Amino acid sequence: MATINVALIGHGFMGRAHSNAWRQVGPFFSPRLRPRLRVLCGRSRERAEDAARALGWEQAAADWRAVVERAGVVPMVCHNYRRAPAVMLARRLVEEGRLGAIRHFRGAYLQDWIVDPAFPLVWRLRRESAGSGALGDIGSHTIDLARLLVGEVVEVAGALETFVRERPLPGRPEERGAVTVDDAALALLRFENGALGTLEATRMAPGRRNHLRFELNGSAGSVAFDLKRMNELEVYFHDDPRPVQGFRTVLATDPSHPYVRAWWPPGHILGYEHTFTHTVYDLLEAVADDRLPAPSFHDGARNQRVLAAIEAAARSRSWTPV
Amino acid sequence: MATINVALIGHGFMGRAHSNAWRQVGPFFSPRLRPRLRVLCGRSRERAEDAARALGWEQAAADWRAVVERAGVVPMVCHNYRRAPAVMLARRLVEEGRLGAIRHFRGAYLQDWIVDPAFPLVWRLRRESAGSGALGDIGSHTIDLARLLVGEVVEVAGALETFVRERPLPGRPEERGAVTVDDAALALLRFENGALGTLEATRMAPGRRNHLRFELNGSAGSVAFDLKRMNELEVYFHDDPRPVQGFRTVLATDPSHPYVRAWWPPGHILGYEHTFTHTVYDLLEAVADDRLPAPSFHDGARNQRVLAAIEAAARSRSWTPV
Amino acid sequence: MATINVALIGHGFMGRAHSNAWRQVGPFFSPRLRPRLRVLCGRSRERAEDAARALGWEQAAADWRAVVERAGVVPMVCHNYRRAPAVMLARRLVEEGRLGAIRHFRGAYLQDWIVDPAFPLVWRLRRESAGSGALGDIGSHTIDLARLLVGEVVEVAGALETFVRERPLPGRPEERGAVTVDDAALALLRFENGALGTLEATRMAPGRRNHLRFELNGSAGSVAFDLKRMNELEVYFHDDPRPVQGFRTVLATDPSHPYVRAWWPPGHILGYEHTFTHTVYDLLEAVADDRLPAPSFHDGARNQRVLAAIEAAARSRSWTPV
Amino acid sequence: MATINVALIGHGFMGRAHSNAWRQVGPFFSPRLRPRLRVLCGRSRERAEDAARALGWEQAAADWRAVVERAGVVPMVCHNYRRAPAVMLARRLVEEGRLGAIRHFRGAYLQDWIVDPAFPLVWRLRRESAGSGALGDIGSHTIDLARLLVGEVVEVAGALETFVRERPLPGRPEERGAVTVDDAALALLRFENGALGTLEATRMAPGRRNHLRFELNGSAGSVAFDLKRMNELEVYFHDDPRPVQGFRTVLATDPSHPYVRAWWPPGHILGYEHTFTHTVYDLLEAVADDRLPAPSFHDGARNQRVLAAIEAAARSRSWTPV
Repeated sequence: MATINVALIGHGFMGRAHSNAWRQVGPFFSPRLRPRLRVLCGRSRERAEDAARALGWEQAAADWRAVVERAGVVPMVCHNYRRAPAVMLARRLVEEGRLGAIRHFRGAYLQDWIVDPAFPLVWRLRRESAGSGALGDIGSHTIDLARLLVGEVVEVAGALETFVRERPLPGRPEERGAVTVDDAALALLRFENGALGTLEATRMAPGRRNHLRFELNGSAGSVAFDLKRMNELEVYFHDDPRPVQGFRTVLATDPSHPYVRAWWPPGHILGYEHTFTHTVYDLLEAVADDRLPAPSFHDGARNQRVLAAIEAAARSRSWTPV
Repeated sequence: MATINVALIGHGFMGRAHSNAWRQVGPFFSPRLRPRLRVLCGRSRERAEDAARALGWEQAAADWRAVVERAGVVPMVCHNYRRAPAVMLARRLVEEGRLGAIRHFRGAYLQDWIVDPAFPLVWRLRRESAGSGALGDIGSHTIDLARLLVGEVVEVAGALETFVRERPLPGRPEERGAVTVDDAALALLRFENGALGTLEATRMAPGRRNHLRFELNGSAGSVAFDLKRMNELEVYFHDDPRPVQGFRTVLATDPSHPYVRAWWPPGHILGYEHTFTHTVYDLLEAVADDRLPAPSFHDGARNQRVLAAIEAAARSRSWTPV
Repeated sequence: MATINVALIGHGFMGRAHSNAWRQVGPFFSPRLRPRLRVLCGRSRERAEDAARALGWEQAAADWRAVVERAGVVPMVCHNYRRAPAVMLARRLVEEGRLGAIRHFRGAYLQDWIVDPAFPLVWRLRRESAGSGALGDIGSHTIDLARLLVGEVVEVAGALETFVRERPLPGRPEERGAVTVDDAALALLRFENGALGTLEATRMAPGRRNHLRFELNGSAGSVAFDLKRMNELEVYFHDDPRPVQGFRTVLATDPSHPYVRAWWPPGHILGYEHTFTHTVYDLLEAVADDRLPAPSFHDGARNQRVLAAIEAAARSRSWTPV
Repeated sequence: MATINVALIGHGFMGRAHSNAWRQVGPFFSPRLRPRLRVLCGRSRERAEDAARALGWEQAAADWRAVVERAGVVPMVCHNYRRAPAVMLARRLVEEGRLGAIRHFRGAYLQDWIVDPAFPLVWRLRRESAGSGALGDIGSHTIDLARLLVGEVVEVAGALETFVRERPLPGRPEERGAVTVDDAALALLRFENGALGTLEATRMAPGRRNHLRFELNGSAGSVAFDLKRMNELEVYFHDDPRPVQGFRTVLATDPSHPYVRAWWPPGHILGYEHTFTHTVYDLLEAVADDRLPAPSFHDGARNQRVLAAIEAAARSRSWTPV
């Protein structure tokens, strides 16, 4: 079996999720290319070495640029949520025409981890380190789902807000600094195919730990998805006989559902991290086939253009083309 | 006991709902003023007479203007949904500060009765007879809830769409006419208190029969309401102990909840029409107290200005003050 | 239109529910027989007279025997819950064979109004006044649903328990008396058609205000019902295509559903009291047709025999034929 | 770091689940003892060798007895469901007295994998190979939860049923053989502490893929758990202020919840297999501490006695002590 060398940059929350995916893809999916976990990069070599040992990497490095320049790289953007089986089932229903022409997309990604004004000014709350706030961090995932399920966004209207404008500095709570990214972002979307959409991303929704929800309404049916019940897809078909019409709660744990055959029998649910394993599997299969995996850097750039258009629309206070 | 004469204009769906409220308010609420159901108005006197007999009115009339000019009238706008006990419980929690400063309002009113393109061009689909489409018909109710729970809307962005632009004429299906109102309306809202909101009204959401849902996120808690489960309010308090934090499904059928004491013991749910009975009760109590009932015509005008601003914003493609 | 004279015995919670049904059946269902609300009976003539005025009865009486002996009576047992549209939809699916052969019935009726040990020893907690506890009061309704949906119960095993054995006397809290009925009852059921069932009735389930839930599993499908969401029926068909199999949440508010045509358009829910109006309507129609309405006194007696068998089984500690 | 040698018997569904747990426990939980995956046993050495390679074991063996006799073994029964964080949260609430005295346990484990009568006569459907049917296979897990949360079962009543009594032989569909275990089992339970319970295990519930649900009602509160939403626990406290009483949906993904700190930030759900990783972690910690892990073989024997009592009660048709 051919092997492929893997390097990972970062060993925090995301580093742990990706490391797990690389370890799990072999036993469950038997990809044609065997991943070899070669090097884990971190800003501190010492901490990277500890992490490499704990997470199963052969070695550690502090200079990620050197690692990347050593290598022939395959570009792909990790929008892991699209690889939940229930989300891919939604896409399959769209592709099969079961929902008809899509007219509405409603996407909300709500969190609550910075509701407390005493929560410190971490790097995600500074434009120079994070680039964007709720919009870029979580809204980008919702846009990826919108693009996957509906198509290209062609124009947007938007609003951004920072509800808590100053926070204590990390480790120095007696000092305060300015929050320079958005706490919340709202947008209206118009798609190439004529569909309309709403987008909301906020970190200020008490009780919504990591609440990503979308609904699609087409001319022939609807689907709805809620990340905290990510093994379920609500599905409605307009052509069901009237007395038994209703949203079906499809438990996407059947061998007939995307990715599921590799895991457990029907009724045994998957968790958050499995979406990363699916991502890695698709990446490996694409490389084995000499195809470009999706979402590609082109997809990523297109997504960024939507984000940029929302920021511009919020500033200009008018509908803005993407 | 003093009595008050009541006239009702219209005896279709709404006329039946209002007639029921006027009949039910006495036995359940024992208002200080006894309503006397004097006259039911309809465009056809003959049909109005049949309806008057069926719905409990003393007499019928075809000229509603004459009836109104006969009378001293009390102005009130019937936004019945705000009088669901669960909605009024939400308002009470806002007023008590249990949710803190409100930052987000998310309101969607989805229906599916015109998804089928063969559905005829009824009066609600013509601007000259209905004035507005989904925005005015159902979006107006959502705006009423937004104003009740958050406060005044000060500016909006919006989009309107008519997905099915031609439909068969009622009774003459071989002929077709133009749909001249919106099938769907979307808006972003900015409130006087700094909160942001989204609004969606559509008649093109398969499976959503009459789906009115809202969520409020404040700095100290959140609530969520879904009309098809209108006896329930989801309530989250940020200050609950961490291991048992979670949205509570409060069944608003307790004597401690608004309006409930007049009905049944805890756990016995109310239906759609009860919201009208509550409206009539509040109207009678306001008259008995010589107070102006709410929502007033001022509220109605304010609501209309929000609707008009959304239409203007959709046309001008920019944020528009209310 | 012919009229029928109606007398009602009792004007507490149930008296109010029945009075409402008699008042509402005319305007909504236009029955062929017009009910005339002649006399309301109560133990105190004075209180009965007040109630008669409030609830719409022509006169009051203190001696119910005299009222009944005056009259030709039509026997019927009021098991109102079977007349929720969603329940009747379940029955229709059973009759149409959509669920195949029924194999399981799972019925639980849970309440919490006497969880507090300081709740007084009201008449429902004394065998001499109530006859039975949770088993007879609420378990009987579940048995009615079991008989409606599955068929005759032929043998049972059971257990009864009184968790709080002494309570303060009503109005004299310093004195205490013995609770002489069951707080909770559990049973296993075997049906004539070979199906098995579980039955639970308890007044000791915190948070379950009036929680009646059942599920039917057949060889071809399943349904589930929850009274607090009584407008919904969960429906599963084994022959749906595998990737979109799932329980459908059917909102039983469609004209195609039993009783609904008389009320509101799709998506507008009914409440608890509507089940009584449906009962009264079916009674009136049966009388107009000179048929015996269901559930008949024979049904009532059969239901009582199941209750008695559960009590006997609990005492004898063995399976007991009905 | 000390290591411990691990042997696993079986490499089907359960073998894959256990192998995964042994691979995952290190990276996520950093146990004091490092597991070394030494040998995987299977009836066919060849297939065991393939499985060993795929699942990460050093070697394979066909004679499990030889492997066990080589070794000092630590006894433990794998009831993995008790190690879902939400289940352990339920136990913690019981232990802290937050639910008061437990009075009711309601446990149902429903599946549908043999609803189709054409499903073949696999080993799980023969007494000589499986020992028991639904009762032993899935009912045993429910009894483990009952014992964990309520305490010892002291007597039972029961019923067993085999709805499909003959099935095609695996690989020889033209021949048929007898199903010699139960398809469904029902029981009433009485606990040492006076609580009552119901137990249902069936493989004949269409739409219920792997539906394990329980509810506990105590004198001060209730909890409910549903395996397909295994990251959620419904929690009700009787002492919440009346107007905001309601079942809370606690998302058991917080660092304050059992086992969660090792995984992901709040709101990121775990899946089925994580319960095995928790089991292995607890086993390793017990060995490191020289404690006996739970559930012990004593627990297993006690569980088996409950199962045997239910079988005996079904035969004798009377309540039977455990």
